[in-house]
Amino acid sequence: MGMTMTQKILAAHAGLPEVKAGQLIEAKLDLVLGNDITSPVAINEFEKCGADSVFDRERIALVMDHFTPNKDIKSAQQCLKTRTFARKYDIKNFFDVGRMGIEHALLPEQGLVGPGDCVIGADSHTCTYGALGAFSTGVGSTDMAAGMITGKAWFKVPSAIRVVLTGKPQKWVSGKDVILHLIGKIGVDGALYRSLEFTGDGLKFLGMADRLTIANMAIEAGAKNGIFPVDEITEAYVKGRFQREPVVYTADDDAEYDETVTIDLSALRPVVAFPHLPSNTKTIDEAKGVKIDQSVIGSCTNGRIEDMRVAAEVLRGRKVADGVRCIIIPATQQVYLDCIREGLAEIFVEAGAVFSTPTCGPCLGGHMGVLAQGERAVSTTNRNFVGRMGHVDSEVYLASPAVAAASAVTGCLTDPAELEGRNGQ
Amino acid sequence: MGMTMTQKILAAHAGLPEVKAGQLIEAKLDLVLGNDITSPVAINEFEKCGADSVFDRERIALVMDHFTPNKDIKSAQQCLKTRTFARKYDIKNFFDVGRMGIEHALLPEQGLVGPGDCVIGADSHTCTYGALGAFSTGVGSTDMAAGMITGKAWFKVPSAIRVVLTGKPQKWVSGKDVILHLIGKIGVDGALYRSLEFTGDGLKFLGMADRLTIANMAIEAGAKNGIFPVDEITEAYVKGRFQREPVVYTADDDAEYDETVTIDLSALRPVVAFPHLPSNTKTIDEAKGVKIDQSVIGSCTNGRIEDMRVAAEVLRGRKVADGVRCIIIPATQQVYLDCIREGLAEIFVEAGAVFSTPTCGPCLGGHMGVLAQGERAVSTTNRNFVGRMGHVDSEVYLASPAVAAASAVTGCLTDPAELEGRNGQ
Repeated sequence: MGMTMTQKILAAHAGLPEVKAGQLIEAKLDLVLGNDITSPVAINEFEKCGADSVFDRERIALVMDHFTPNKDIKSAQQCLKTRTFARKYDIKNFFDVGRMGIEHALLPEQGLVGPGDCVIGADSHTCTYGALGAFSTGVGSTDMAAGMITGKAWFKVPSAIRVVLTGKPQKWVSGKDVILHLIGKIGVDGALYRSLEFTGDGLKFLGMADRLTIANMAIEAGAKNGIFPVDEITEAYVKGRFQREPVVYTADDDAEYDETVTIDLSALRPVVAFPHLPSNTKTIDEAKGVKIDQSVIGSCTNGRIEDMRVAAEVLRGRKVADGVRCIIIPATQQVYLDCIREGLAEIFVEAGAVFSTPTCGPCLGGHMGVLAQGERAVSTTNRNFVGRMGHVDSEVYLASPAVAAASAVTGCLTDPAELEGRNGQ
Repeated sequence: MGMTMTQKILAAHAGLPEVKAGQLIEAKLDLVLGNDITSPVAINEFEKCGADSVFDRERIALVMDHFTPNKDIKSAQQCLKTRTFARKYDIKNFFDVGRMGIEHALLPEQGLVGPGDCVIGADSHTCTYGALGAFSTGVGSTDMAAGMITGKAWFKVPSAIRVVLTGKPQKWVSGKDVILHLIGKIGVDGALYRSLEFTGDGLKFLGMADRLTIANMAIEAGAKNGIFPVDEITEAYVKGRFQREPVVYTADDDAEYDETVTIDLSALRPVVAFPHLPSNTKTIDEAKGVKIDQSVIGSCTNGRIEDMRVAAEVLRGRKVADGVRCIIIPATQQVYLDCIREGLAEIFVEAGAVFSTPTCGPCLGGHMGVLAQGERAVSTTNRNFVGRMGHVDSEVYLASPAVAAASAVTGCLTDPAELEGRNGQ
């Protein structure tokens, strides 16, 4: 019996010719990631172990993104602790305020993760890098500490669901709609501790931003990881960017899958996940008309330049509706700079949107857009659990940048196609 | 005995031919201001009084600036309360996220305050509008509530200190240096409950941004208000901007002043106020070399386009020093847009600075740049009291945008003149 793509990567990193689903292995890590919330906890564990060195100062990334620029004294202390640790151990990839971005957008952009990698991060959306053909998964801060010390981690080898994507998506349908549709189909535990391995002739219509969005939300179906094959789109993305040598793993022809799910991309409509689960999906046709107070465009899920361009296409020459706060946050300083240079920043501010410095902030009710009682947000982020963006009586509707931007203009959930032909430039 | 400029304005608004220092009067208000911290308290008082209408829906300004985009649930509830009130009473000048700015930069910019006005605001830096030849002063939320109901407020007529400004300031010396120097000279209670009335041939070298900065910090010398005569610079600023008819009041020739302070602008050096009082001033020559962790450029004191231009002049082609966070926050959406259009935003992000949406945030340790234990910030804001920007063991050094930007580049308090000739563009 052959191996899945994920199993191939794990076997290679465990130094084994073969691994099987359910097997416990110890794998070498190409990168260990932490942020301003999880790193301080990991550093405590690191120190409790009596460790006095890291396995590789170039293979640890510490990204100050969740509550930065610091929202309060506690978050400032967390950054200070991490900063002090980074200085002490001369951590090469320490990303501080003004020189950073949201971790899962920043690491691919900076070429710190790439094809064939085995990566852990003390953040649940670490599964994002599967878009590049890497095995990457979220872990707790204790595992992060162990990873920083030893450069290794224990895994139970996952089985897999094969997701076959066919056809070409229509305009305004993006990676976000694909993953929301999938989660709606299989449920928030539909892929529990399994890999989501994407394949099919529809892949060629999904750019790297779409794939990163899809892999990012694999965890929202309970998956251990989500992963894409390495193709020309991957190669074009990592070329001149990835700091190490890409290693391409492909699933064996006789790899075993628990099940196969097929999605016809050409039949997809824009999708909205209603409160309070990412699986509570409706098409925009079923969803439209729900009034909103806030629209958030950004996050590790949808804060890349491609997302910004879509939002700008919708907002150009239009105004955010009265009574709606539209908060647009590019995921990295580079995306921010690109937005300025491409004229997108100007479009956003002219439309009456907030355009702010990279932070995870609003996604997790952290800062920069927390919701009050009874308020509703449409958001391009990844979770809409009870109280996720603020008050326990607030609501989050997950959607693509196109839907979030169109909804900001009308004040209610809106199909972006319906704005076409209306005023705007 | 004649009247000071402040006394003239108060007499006119009290409907009296003459007022004297110490007299209690009731004056008509041209505008009543509140923000997201003070308005909810005022609204509580408003409702406790059983009020069911405001004196004038066009003469109340409610600006959501301190903790926006909302940093937590509490601040979101405060904005919700104010937003609900604004809708109920159809308040014309309600400024929400994405369509706002820091109150004391926004109101002059939007032409809501102007020459001859009598203005109260539930924020201590309401004295800013004295730059336009208005009487304006900070009050508590209860006075704000009474003002919203009646359109009037009680005042004790202040006596005045005459501040004579002579000569032309040298390059890199700005309004911020003038007011810090003055506060250093007379102390934080040097003008307690008195007017600071600025005059002299040096005024013609102080643009509106300089004057707004100077009047803004009058409260830091304990003054009831700071005020400038209306001249061509004022007229040019308010023309086509101020929404009402300017009324020009001038001090009588025989007006009585408690004292006269003369400042030779041509002899001034850039000034830094050391922890923990705005009066603890040193020249940059005495201050230089103190290491900093953070540089904040913005706030109601120094977040105008002129301030941004100076910061960009220093940062162009340079990089923020390793280990320093540089946080630049334009004071209004309009300033933000101007920064994008003039290429300043690009300069800031290229330099490795944060460039973020308008908020008071870091100035008061609110959000977007709170300090950890032992950290030092140079800041263009207005207060450096113990713990003002975060941890009780952090320190704030007040300075001009030029000094704050130069210090961001070197990592320690720096005379911007010393960077000239070094690399940069």
